[in-house]
Amino acid sequence: MQYIDLRSDTVTQPTQAMRDAMANAVVGDDVFGDDPTLQDLEAYAAERLGKEAALFVTSGMQGNACALLAHTRRGDCVVIDPHSHISEHEAGSYGQLAGVSLRFPKSTDGTMDPASVRACLTDDSDLQVAPATLVVMENAHSSGAVVPLENMRAVYETAHAAGAAVHLDGARLFNAAAALDISDVRELTQYCDTVMCCLSKGLCAPVGSVLAGPKDLIWRARRARRILGGGMRQGGFLAAAGLVALRDMPARIPEDHENAKHLGSLLSAIDGVHIFADRIQIDMVFFTADWDADKAARYPTWMLEHGVKVTGCMGGEYRMVCHYGVTRADCEATAALVRQFAAEG
Amino acid sequence: MQYIDLRSDTVTQPTQAMRDAMANAVVGDDVFGDDPTLQDLEAYAAERLGKEAALFVTSGMQGNACALLAHTRRGDCVVIDPHSHISEHEAGSYGQLAGVSLRFPKSTDGTMDPASVRACLTDDSDLQVAPATLVVMENAHSSGAVVPLENMRAVYETAHAAGAAVHLDGARLFNAAAALDISDVRELTQYCDTVMCCLSKGLCAPVGSVLAGPKDLIWRARRARRILGGGMRQGGFLAAAGLVALRDMPARIPEDHENAKHLGSLLSAIDGVHIFADRIQIDMVFFTADWDADKAARYPTWMLEHGVKVTGCMGGEYRMVCHYGVTRADCEATAALVRQFAAEG
Amino acid sequence: MQYIDLRSDTVTQPTQAMRDAMANAVVGDDVFGDDPTLQDLEAYAAERLGKEAALFVTSGMQGNACALLAHTRRGDCVVIDPHSHISEHEAGSYGQLAGVSLRFPKSTDGTMDPASVRACLTDDSDLQVAPATLVVMENAHSSGAVVPLENMRAVYETAHAAGAAVHLDGARLFNAAAALDISDVRELTQYCDTVMCCLSKGLCAPVGSVLAGPKDLIWRARRARRILGGGMRQGGFLAAAGLVALRDMPARIPEDHENAKHLGSLLSAIDGVHIFADRIQIDMVFFTADWDADKAARYPTWMLEHGVKVTGCMGGEYRMVCHYGVTRADCEATAALVRQFAAEG
Amino acid sequence: MQYIDLRSDTVTQPTQAMRDAMANAVVGDDVFGDDPTLQDLEAYAAERLGKEAALFVTSGMQGNACALLAHTRRGDCVVIDPHSHISEHEAGSYGQLAGVSLRFPKSTDGTMDPASVRACLTDDSDLQVAPATLVVMENAHSSGAVVPLENMRAVYETAHAAGAAVHLDGARLFNAAAALDISDVRELTQYCDTVMCCLSKGLCAPVGSVLAGPKDLIWRARRARRILGGGMRQGGFLAAAGLVALRDMPARIPEDHENAKHLGSLLSAIDGVHIFADRIQIDMVFFTADWDADKAARYPTWMLEHGVKVTGCMGGEYRMVCHYGVTRADCEATAALVRQFAAEG
Repeated sequence: MQYIDLRSDTVTQPTQAMRDAMANAVVGDDVFGDDPTLQDLEAYAAERLGKEAALFVTSGMQGNACALLAHTRRGDCVVIDPHSHISEHEAGSYGQLAGVSLRFPKSTDGTMDPASVRACLTDDSDLQVAPATLVVMENAHSSGAVVPLENMRAVYETAHAAGAAVHLDGARLFNAAAALDISDVRELTQYCDTVMCCLSKGLCAPVGSVLAGPKDLIWRARRARRILGGGMRQGGFLAAAGLVALRDMPARIPEDHENAKHLGSLLSAIDGVHIFADRIQIDMVFFTADWDADKAARYPTWMLEHGVKVTGCMGGEYRMVCHYGVTRADCEATAALVRQFAAEG
Repeated sequence: MQYIDLRSDTVTQPTQAMRDAMANAVVGDDVFGDDPTLQDLEAYAAERLGKEAALFVTSGMQGNACALLAHTRRGDCVVIDPHSHISEHEAGSYGQLAGVSLRFPKSTDGTMDPASVRACLTDDSDLQVAPATLVVMENAHSSGAVVPLENMRAVYETAHAAGAAVHLDGARLFNAAAALDISDVRELTQYCDTVMCCLSKGLCAPVGSVLAGPKDLIWRARRARRILGGGMRQGGFLAAAGLVALRDMPARIPEDHENAKHLGSLLSAIDGVHIFADRIQIDMVFFTADWDADKAARYPTWMLEHGVKVTGCMGGEYRMVCHYGVTRADCEATAALVRQFAAEG
Repeated sequence: MQYIDLRSDTVTQPTQAMRDAMANAVVGDDVFGDDPTLQDLEAYAAERLGKEAALFVTSGMQGNACALLAHTRRGDCVVIDPHSHISEHEAGSYGQLAGVSLRFPKSTDGTMDPASVRACLTDDSDLQVAPATLVVMENAHSSGAVVPLENMRAVYETAHAAGAAVHLDGARLFNAAAALDISDVRELTQYCDTVMCCLSKGLCAPVGSVLAGPKDLIWRARRARRILGGGMRQGGFLAAAGLVALRDMPARIPEDHENAKHLGSLLSAIDGVHIFADRIQIDMVFFTADWDADKAARYPTWMLEHGVKVTGCMGGEYRMVCHYGVTRADCEATAALVRQFAAEG
Repeated sequence: MQYIDLRSDTVTQPTQAMRDAMANAVVGDDVFGDDPTLQDLEAYAAERLGKEAALFVTSGMQGNACALLAHTRRGDCVVIDPHSHISEHEAGSYGQLAGVSLRFPKSTDGTMDPASVRACLTDDSDLQVAPATLVVMENAHSSGAVVPLENMRAVYETAHAAGAAVHLDGARLFNAAAALDISDVRELTQYCDTVMCCLSKGLCAPVGSVLAGPKDLIWRARRARRILGGGMRQGGFLAAAGLVALRDMPARIPEDHENAKHLGSLLSAIDGVHIFADRIQIDMVFFTADWDADKAARYPTWMLEHGVKVTGCMGGEYRMVCHYGVTRADCEATAALVRQFAAEG
């Protein structure tokens, strides 16, 4: 059975072009600097992201971890949105790996108030508080919202004026760019020192992310990656797919956004379903539903039995994510099923 | 010049009884188990706090750190009020030392919503989130408020039902007890597995806190204390003063609370000064003032020149703390000065 | 130009069978438990290594790190050979990631003296020393030597009798088995709780290792892998190659050992070259040479110009490693070149 | 009963002058910078140790920990004698607190071979190894031996030439100076960036050590001390005793050395007792004895029953330590008892 899978854009299957690239990849031992495909990917990623150097990593979490380890000393403080991926969805690895603490400015769906960021940027002069040496932005944000370019600029300038560096968690960087109608992501990445961007998710690569930034920080990150056991020998196979993802897939991201908006509008017409319309900015639709606990619990199973994979209620919200494997017709079929479930399920 | 010092109850000078006890203390090498005074203090503290065993530590921060290190594995998550001392005033040591992350339930001035605590208590079954193995309560809370006994019970039972342990940051435990009109602090400490209580602050010992709990955890904490370099050779000198503090000083705590209430009521009558009346539950008065930035900056200096030591505006609030070295007359003199400063300063 | 590459067995190119398996791999999102190829690999690895469960990891270092994180609490002590890979070649990650220290028993090329291991196994009763909770063996050892089965048994029983667990760093486990003429590696892995085994190196997979052990420890390791950012979405591509490696490649390992012995004997006949004959037990040859610093520095370059990739002198020794990409003729050509370099180079 | 206590020089009781100083100490809240006695001690220590600034810490371990935390980033490597206090007697805190690993040069009783130190000083250029950023010397060494001034100079220059800093664990710094017949310890401390010196042990203060060095590093160390919970409020009591220790007690250290030599020579005349004569350089005597396990186990108890406290066999050796509380007559009485025990005990 062929399912419609709306659980996440991480479920994307690699394209045939990626499979072909992998099958024919020229690989070597990257620890000896012998993998030309990995090197091609890192060079291309650096250029495309507007940074001096880039590093291939296994996952977005590993890219963020390498960034934290490269930027901070243990005991430093990181200023970040309280509902960002690092804050809520990385199992507290900031504490365990980097030995840093988090400090939360006023922030709405990832758009942090620059004055509040400023107030969080304590220096090394007060022993009572951890010195804030890094600000992390996340764009697109896990909430589905996108941070405006102007806010990125303001936060970046605020951080730099206070001597802090800026890391951009761009797990869905190309989604943010598409939502902001920016064709060159360097317009976004100019407002960070380092940026992590996932090649999986909407870009459909099977495995991998890239971290880009200045040479010295990327060297530190490379050291951190080795400590995390993230170094690969013949990693060129994954890089081959990643290159296709980074070159060819951003252009089709807007289609997912259109589908998400369409899906959202269909869902919004269903009795008892309430979408967060202003957070349908990328490929995700969030909604609440007037369903009791029992009905909420039956929802993912019922949908699965009818051919649609969805995640259950998390933190009071339901989420659906569009991607390369989801067509407009899939969205319509899904909305029809939700309408049926809402009515009778 | 003799100042009125309202910056904190940590400024308390040891009493003559403490100085005498220190002068005559019988001491030995505690690493060899030879310091009878330290052992007396630890035995007395265990009994008074209603636990099997106790450990003398250098500071409240060290006691909390030992508790975190004893209770958790790296990568665990601690459920705690977002404005607690560990969350905001310990320089992020939870990350650096213990490698744990924090998770914040709904909470008002330290009184955490039990249902929200329950929702935070994730177990080990989901790799996406850190397992929550410890709940920390703080009573009295840094905000000046006191957590009701019934809430402590509810949080404790919620934690234990979910398999999590409970640590009580009782830096001002005897203030909490006095505010709740509880004469035996074991009524409070029955709702925690470990409790840290400061002998300095309102109890006036020069240096030191105690951590009490079950024998096995206190053994782990003792190991942690050694790792932190907190082991003392002839620590009996400090323990001698600590014993006096723990035996004789709790009884006079209510006087500080009365003074704080009196000071608060005097300040509340001053134009442009707005006290947080419902947070005057222990020895602290918090207020805001309709003073511009310039006047706010002049405030501590002006007060100092007039014989009163106060801290400046922090997080938008001013704080004054009563203690053994502050008389009712001092409160009145202080209020008169603030009135003068507000009017003309 | 086609080089003879003797720098390491990590330079092995995947076989055509592996490339085919990758090209046709059925993959899914492993975080949702949807990658059947990854699951097949983990199930097969568990069975082949004689353990309840297994985990695919990016590298041997990541496998060892996951094992340390699963077995230990911060502050524990690990008993290990002083010249093991974890001790010397993993950039001190044991301290940074796991917060543990190392303790070294008497040991020769990985074969640890059981009585000395016993003396290292301090328990939790003495605060002055870290409790030893884990013993790590490495077989085959980085020195090229193999640990006898009987020694493994003795160390394992010693550890368990003292309440410590045992991890086996089996980066070259199948080399050890071949050297010991053991066809079923479970004869070796019965003497450990967890075992890490590399699918790259002599087995030729492009990327990846497996960690196997009891279910509860592998669950902990899985959590650790996520913290390290080692989780993969469609990791089945690498697993497909890994399955071929684990199924089909162990059988041909003895050929590499024969080649190494042959190469060693040819080198030993060269004036000024001194092989460590008793350490040619797997696929590696170590030797010293009576060359001055200048000649030593020219050696790798000269060899490269003549078509052979070798590493330079490290710790006073030279190393050559045989593998799937190295034929007996390559060994002979290499030895002839070394003879020429020694004479005139 | 008055015991002769030879277990360690840490058992020293404070002198009456120290008790008097403590009784009359002027103290204040050091967190507010209000403790004049603590400040006096830190200023005096800085001057006496020849450094810009100094920090009072609870213990030698805490001083070493603060130094490691101030000097290193997590993941760095520390070059150190394998039998130093940090290596063997601090419960692996280097890993747990600082996240660093250790690397051991050739070394005899703390005197490290400079060429071997040089070989250990890897820089940041090789990802396979941790960068060595700190060299630690220990003088006097835990073995009882003293590191010659010339060796300190050579190691210091080697470290600095390679860009690494130097920390001196001078727990018994004044013993080293006395043994080397150096009256001004700055002759020793010129060969380190930071130095830790214990005020307890031979100097007889009840609690405390000092860490001295450049202002910026001491600031970092002060931050580290707070993280470790080592900050004290009215710490002036301990500082008052510490000042007496640092001012008045070094001058009498040679007496302990003479007593140790005398005790050693008496012990050496006993059948079956073999002293390490060349390691009687400070206040310690090490020896082995031809006693079976049963007799070895009875030794501390038998001595205790006869009025002498000694530690049992550790690592195959027995140790006795002279100090302020041990007279020449005590040494003679002890030797006579050991002779008796050896003969009949």
